[in-house]
Amino acid sequence: MSEVRGGPVLPDRGLSFALLARDGQARRGRLATAHGIVETPAFMPVGTAATVKAMTPEAVAQTGAQIVLGNTYHLMLRPGADRIRRLGGLRKFMNWQGPVLTDSGGFQVMSLADLRKVTEEGVTFRSHLDGAKHLLSPESAVGIQHDLDSTITMQLDECVAYPAPEAEAERAMELSLRWAARCKAAFRPRAGYGLFGIVQGGVNPTLRHRSAAGLVEIGFDGYALGGLAVGEGLELRNLVLDATVPHLPEDRPRYLMGVGKPVDLVESVARGVDMFDCVLPTRSGRTSQAFTRAGPMNLRNARFADDAEPLDPDCACPACRNYGRAYLHHLVKAKEILGSMLLTWHNLTYYQDLMRDMRQAIQAGRFASFRRAFLDSPAAGRETEAAGSSGDGPEN
Amino acid sequence: MSEVRGGPVLPDRGLSFALLARDGQARRGRLATAHGIVETPAFMPVGTAATVKAMTPEAVAQTGAQIVLGNTYHLMLRPGADRIRRLGGLRKFMNWQGPVLTDSGGFQVMSLADLRKVTEEGVTFRSHLDGAKHLLSPESAVGIQHDLDSTITMQLDECVAYPAPEAEAERAMELSLRWAARCKAAFRPRAGYGLFGIVQGGVNPTLRHRSAAGLVEIGFDGYALGGLAVGEGLELRNLVLDATVPHLPEDRPRYLMGVGKPVDLVESVARGVDMFDCVLPTRSGRTSQAFTRAGPMNLRNARFADDAEPLDPDCACPACRNYGRAYLHHLVKAKEILGSMLLTWHNLTYYQDLMRDMRQAIQAGRFASFRRAFLDSPAAGRETEAAGSSGDGPEN
Repeated sequence: MSEVRGGPVLPDRGLSFALLARDGQARRGRLATAHGIVETPAFMPVGTAATVKAMTPEAVAQTGAQIVLGNTYHLMLRPGADRIRRLGGLRKFMNWQGPVLTDSGGFQVMSLADLRKVTEEGVTFRSHLDGAKHLLSPESAVGIQHDLDSTITMQLDECVAYPAPEAEAERAMELSLRWAARCKAAFRPRAGYGLFGIVQGGVNPTLRHRSAAGLVEIGFDGYALGGLAVGEGLELRNLVLDATVPHLPEDRPRYLMGVGKPVDLVESVARGVDMFDCVLPTRSGRTSQAFTRAGPMNLRNARFADDAEPLDPDCACPACRNYGRAYLHHLVKAKEILGSMLLTWHNLTYYQDLMRDMRQAIQAGRFASFRRAFLDSPAAGRETEAAGSSGDGPEN
Repeated sequence: MSEVRGGPVLPDRGLSFALLARDGQARRGRLATAHGIVETPAFMPVGTAATVKAMTPEAVAQTGAQIVLGNTYHLMLRPGADRIRRLGGLRKFMNWQGPVLTDSGGFQVMSLADLRKVTEEGVTFRSHLDGAKHLLSPESAVGIQHDLDSTITMQLDECVAYPAPEAEAERAMELSLRWAARCKAAFRPRAGYGLFGIVQGGVNPTLRHRSAAGLVEIGFDGYALGGLAVGEGLELRNLVLDATVPHLPEDRPRYLMGVGKPVDLVESVARGVDMFDCVLPTRSGRTSQAFTRAGPMNLRNARFADDAEPLDPDCACPACRNYGRAYLHHLVKAKEILGSMLLTWHNLTYYQDLMRDMRQAIQAGRFASFRRAFLDSPAAGRETEAAGSSGDGPEN
């Protein structure tokens, strides 16, 4: 964990991923990139529009995050990929010292853009900002992410809604596979940079298997599971994970896109997932929701008005170290920006602490007991005050 | 400037104020309080609702601020003075390590509350939040500030609108004087805590003189100039300062309430003012306005979209050190919270740098040339992009 940035030797092309320990299906790994190390399992805070909302990048790093995610769809529309390229790339633009992963824009085109149309060539759509028409093709998605100087580029894929007819899930999965090959061809390999393929196939294990096999044949630096966290629920998602992960190469990181709640992270790490992203900790932070070791809390609740206790006594973040719940309650009620800042800071710290604890448990060969203890704890509470979606919808 | 907090010996009752240097009318002083030193001339960031908006207190301290202002009106309504007392006082509640000055609530009752009625007893009004009826009397204003554990308590005064008929200005001034005496009687002196009187009298030099003389006779730890920055303009305000300040004791700090733009600070320091507060740097920071050595800038302006330069190359704040104007422009356009955070941070740093430069100039006996150079610089620009009011309206 004390690895110096850039310490490990990077391959001439692509990313280096070392498996440090296994414990059941759970894996402890280390991803070396051109822009720093990522200890896995890792959670990537979402920095949609070149900012992790309500946080300075210094604060993001202080939570323990080593990599952040940017959204190609948002960035291509505003401020524009060309502009970010001219300004030195996304990392320089937003002053993030570590690696960045960018999605391909495909998912958000589906959820945000107007008049979208999927063809073999790609997706045409109109910007939700100004109505301007755009085409996102495998080649342009890779090109935009190249302009952003993304450390990890995601292939363009088509993500179908849940539930989808099997034929529709199959069609989209096959299209995504053909797009994957075109992305691979368009991607310019560089030392410490990588391209990830995305497994699709809805909730059908056979389709997922075929997708995984097809991607592995093309060959990627990492493999993502897409099209999940769209409403299928934890049990079905776990089934898909169980059916898919064994078909992915051992020596490459696995990234479950858009997931999730704390319990989702634990259950997915148990199934061999290495990387996550989700808007939940940041979005919750702006809507008065806190994740704590005592379970989720809604700071708007009047029961906190006179509560001088720290939000989570076992958390070392500034929100917990320097203030009482009564103050956070006050900030939320008064709609003060500092409320969003502190709760976001806390939630991201909570997520990073959870990942750190999982890494340590795997390394020590006690992940099974860690998982049991977590599932028995209030922190696992699935139906909670802080409910909200665990989906990977856009961070708005 | 390297004084250790609490170093100077505090009087058994009240505040200690040392005049370190004079240069013309400008003064370089040091105010010792129970909660730390304030080097003067000083600018106090406004922390209306127990938070300097969009800033952590650590960040506020990093700008160089040594004292912040809280608003009694806002705090008595939400979260309530009793509650803050139970939670350890305002400084503990909001985690501000230095001294706090609170206004009396009078000004904001006049500008924000509904159905207000001024009598000899005090002001009755209805909360703008929930319509509840309240009485603010000299005694309750002091009592509330005692509950807040304010380092510096302000007397309750009546601030008339500008322009006001002379008879109205005189009536309010006389009432404020009677209230001043009642506040003095109600205030419990403690070592390192102080009570300030407020000079009223509109723009009439004779009334201002009478007000000052009356307050001095009662005797306060410091003297504020109220009822200014309400639309009278720089020239008239300067005339009032010239007519009032000579009647205030040399050995007590003078505080010009609700002022102002950078040029206002320089011109008022030249007239012997020691302390200021204003929402301008914080409010401007949330509305895309930046104060810089090259003059005010509106970061929303499209001319910054590709501008990789730092906001103010001579500023050491994080906004200037870590980002380009293009990024700040992007944050403002995308309505990102980080835009408000960084621009507020910068503006407060700019204000504190200006105060520091003035302190150094006075100490070195070169304030006249500093003032001339400032007035000749773009930073003095009075009619600017960043216009907006320099009034002391509530921070909302």
